[in-house]
Amino acid sequence: MKRAIIFIMDGAGDRAIKEFGFLTPIEAASTPTLDRIAKNGINGLMYTVGPGIIPGSDTSHMNLFGYDPKEYYPGRGPLEALGEGIDLKPGDVAFRVNFATVDDNMRIIDRRAGRIKSGTEELAKLIDGIEIDGVEVIFKPSVQHRAVLVLRGEDLSDRVSDSDPHIEGVPVKKVIPLEETPEAKKTAKILNELIMIAHERFSKAEINKKRKEKGLLPANIILTRGAGMMRYVEPIEKRYRIRGAIVSGVAIVRGVGRLLGMEAPKVKGATGDPNTNIDAKIDAVIELLKDHDVVLVNIKAPDVFGHDGNPIGKKKFIEKIDKHMRRLLDYAIENNVYLIVTSDHSTPCSKRDHSSDPVPLAAIGPDVRVDSVEKFGERFAAFGGLGTITGMGLFGTILDWIDKAEKFGA
Amino acid sequence: MKRAIIFIMDGAGDRAIKEFGFLTPIEAASTPTLDRIAKNGINGLMYTVGPGIIPGSDTSHMNLFGYDPKEYYPGRGPLEALGEGIDLKPGDVAFRVNFATVDDNMRIIDRRAGRIKSGTEELAKLIDGIEIDGVEVIFKPSVQHRAVLVLRGEDLSDRVSDSDPHIEGVPVKKVIPLEETPEAKKTAKILNELIMIAHERFSKAEINKKRKEKGLLPANIILTRGAGMMRYVEPIEKRYRIRGAIVSGVAIVRGVGRLLGMEAPKVKGATGDPNTNIDAKIDAVIELLKDHDVVLVNIKAPDVFGHDGNPIGKKKFIEKIDKHMRRLLDYAIENNVYLIVTSDHSTPCSKRDHSSDPVPLAAIGPDVRVDSVEKFGERFAAFGGLGTITGMGLFGTILDWIDKAEKFGA
Repeated sequence: MKRAIIFIMDGAGDRAIKEFGFLTPIEAASTPTLDRIAKNGINGLMYTVGPGIIPGSDTSHMNLFGYDPKEYYPGRGPLEALGEGIDLKPGDVAFRVNFATVDDNMRIIDRRAGRIKSGTEELAKLIDGIEIDGVEVIFKPSVQHRAVLVLRGEDLSDRVSDSDPHIEGVPVKKVIPLEETPEAKKTAKILNELIMIAHERFSKAEINKKRKEKGLLPANIILTRGAGMMRYVEPIEKRYRIRGAIVSGVAIVRGVGRLLGMEAPKVKGATGDPNTNIDAKIDAVIELLKDHDVVLVNIKAPDVFGHDGNPIGKKKFIEKIDKHMRRLLDYAIENNVYLIVTSDHSTPCSKRDHSSDPVPLAAIGPDVRVDSVEKFGERFAAFGGLGTITGMGLFGTILDWIDKAEKFGA
Repeated sequence: MKRAIIFIMDGAGDRAIKEFGFLTPIEAASTPTLDRIAKNGINGLMYTVGPGIIPGSDTSHMNLFGYDPKEYYPGRGPLEALGEGIDLKPGDVAFRVNFATVDDNMRIIDRRAGRIKSGTEELAKLIDGIEIDGVEVIFKPSVQHRAVLVLRGEDLSDRVSDSDPHIEGVPVKKVIPLEETPEAKKTAKILNELIMIAHERFSKAEINKKRKEKGLLPANIILTRGAGMMRYVEPIEKRYRIRGAIVSGVAIVRGVGRLLGMEAPKVKGATGDPNTNIDAKIDAVIELLKDHDVVLVNIKAPDVFGHDGNPIGKKKFIEKIDKHMRRLLDYAIENNVYLIVTSDHSTPCSKRDHSSDPVPLAAIGPDVRVDSVEKFGERFAAFGGLGTITGMGLFGTILDWIDKAEKFGA
């Protein structure tokens, strides 16, 4: 059985950094193992979603598994819920939620409830499982002040506004239907009721009493946003005849995996931040390869440094990845596994957000075409033998390498 | 009148060959004339159908003439029939056929009737032209054990199964309708009757008596597969205002030409195998250029060596093509004709089948932009001035070079 590993350095692509002599963090970093992959394999520039399109971490990973997000993107809410392990059914409407703090006039004091770190499970239990107008409320805490909410029942809609005003000092917004349908009106009404029930129950909760005693802000309200309706997506095993898996510390990336019918385990120590346990993730990849054709592993930290505008941190972290990469490369070579190293999108330190700049891509494998590229990096990848491709194009290429692609025509 | 030649080295693109020091057969070959075209012209990497898509010889050639196969692909049967010179009408249903050998229980002994080489014309006459339920049977032998079958009449369908089980030792399969329509049922019934008529008449045929006397397997049945319905395709002269022609020893490539309303003569000595007469093909190209704007010539042999997993044979044949190319290049330069050398797809010796790997492309002409590429080959083409393009993109570029393209906008 031929297999492939897709190694994603999240947000690693960048723009010219003046203090690096106009090199990017990848180009400036010392990366002997990445360079070895580039030199002995094939390279290319990848516009994950398409040229001139700024990818999200979700849309990019959908492309990387051959699903066009223009057709299949369910919205952020369902991806978060799936990523947190909730089994969504078609018709469920899911939301991202913040635990927040309001004053007696429902005015928002803190959108993150004093960056609450623990005790949210206790609060979640106060509303998880209740029913409003025959609709079931599923409510699970995520990391820190975050949670996910799912409404399950007949005749719901994701065409409703956020209750989260995205700023502080103003009241919680009333959820309104975004279209004149019975479904949108019903969903808005249920959400508004749920928010009041949560406020009532959270205000009396033991944990908030304790927080107040400690001088911490109480988590006494929920703010909802990112409504999306779950719909049926043909599983990857049916569509492409492969078994796929994703190893990631990021909920929406795992959510993409589960949306497409893949395994996306929570790996201990995989945090989605610079303290993540890269070795534990590599172990998980190697384990998953026993019964999966394609395993993607996402290391989030380069993206975090990009958002923070920290090129030196980004460069150092890429060097750290490179050190861990040696073990994975040795494994790949020894086991005739295809190894593709790339990024889901650029997150330039100058922009402090995702950008449409293409990302470098290098791939190695038993018979992969070798090109003239000698080093891993944006400017080198431009000479690569894959030319300029998209995430969908890369996925088709990988399917072909592992003998899972079908000929179009005769 | 500006004109262009598209020279297709079928399946010439490849992957890293260990015994060539990880070069591809093209890169390893000594190709002074191809290198001269690359050095004095413009180069690029081409994903004929699209990145990550494995092209067939048929879908790739459709793209190379600006017809999207997703829209116009009629299936293998009609392309084979057209390539064998049958004038198909919209509504005709065409099949690929094998002459085969069955025992008295209709069990298949040999799917190729002992690789029968001659006498199939005599057998074909026994069923060509007969009528079943008002439907006309058109049956023509092709090379060796192959033939094409066309059903012509009202209310037919191509949604019918193969009678060819694709393995030996089992009975001929009954053709069944693949959808619950009167058309599919009617077509299946006619096919099953035809197969029995063919069996009856072939069994008594003089040639089979002779074959038995010589100890050869009789060709006493037909196996059908690859049903496709001919539909109207706007001819290239109408759609793109050019006259086009294809020179190829391969039936389905000629079939693509005829489907698009082009001339696709059978050239004497053009066999589609390594013994093909390249000079005769070049003569045909030069002759066709007298009254055609774009002439494509396809040399099949590199693909054959790819399917056989024979990198040395492939490299040597590419060197042979290069020697013949000198005359065509001299002609092109002398006559201000654009000459484009490329491949329809890669057929890596390691995969022994078509792959999605892009193919190198080099083009020369009176005013073609010159880039920095010095040699013809996969890794060099990646630096080319055309960047990464598709077959459709190349066709548009060629139309522009010969002043047949229209501006989009003002």
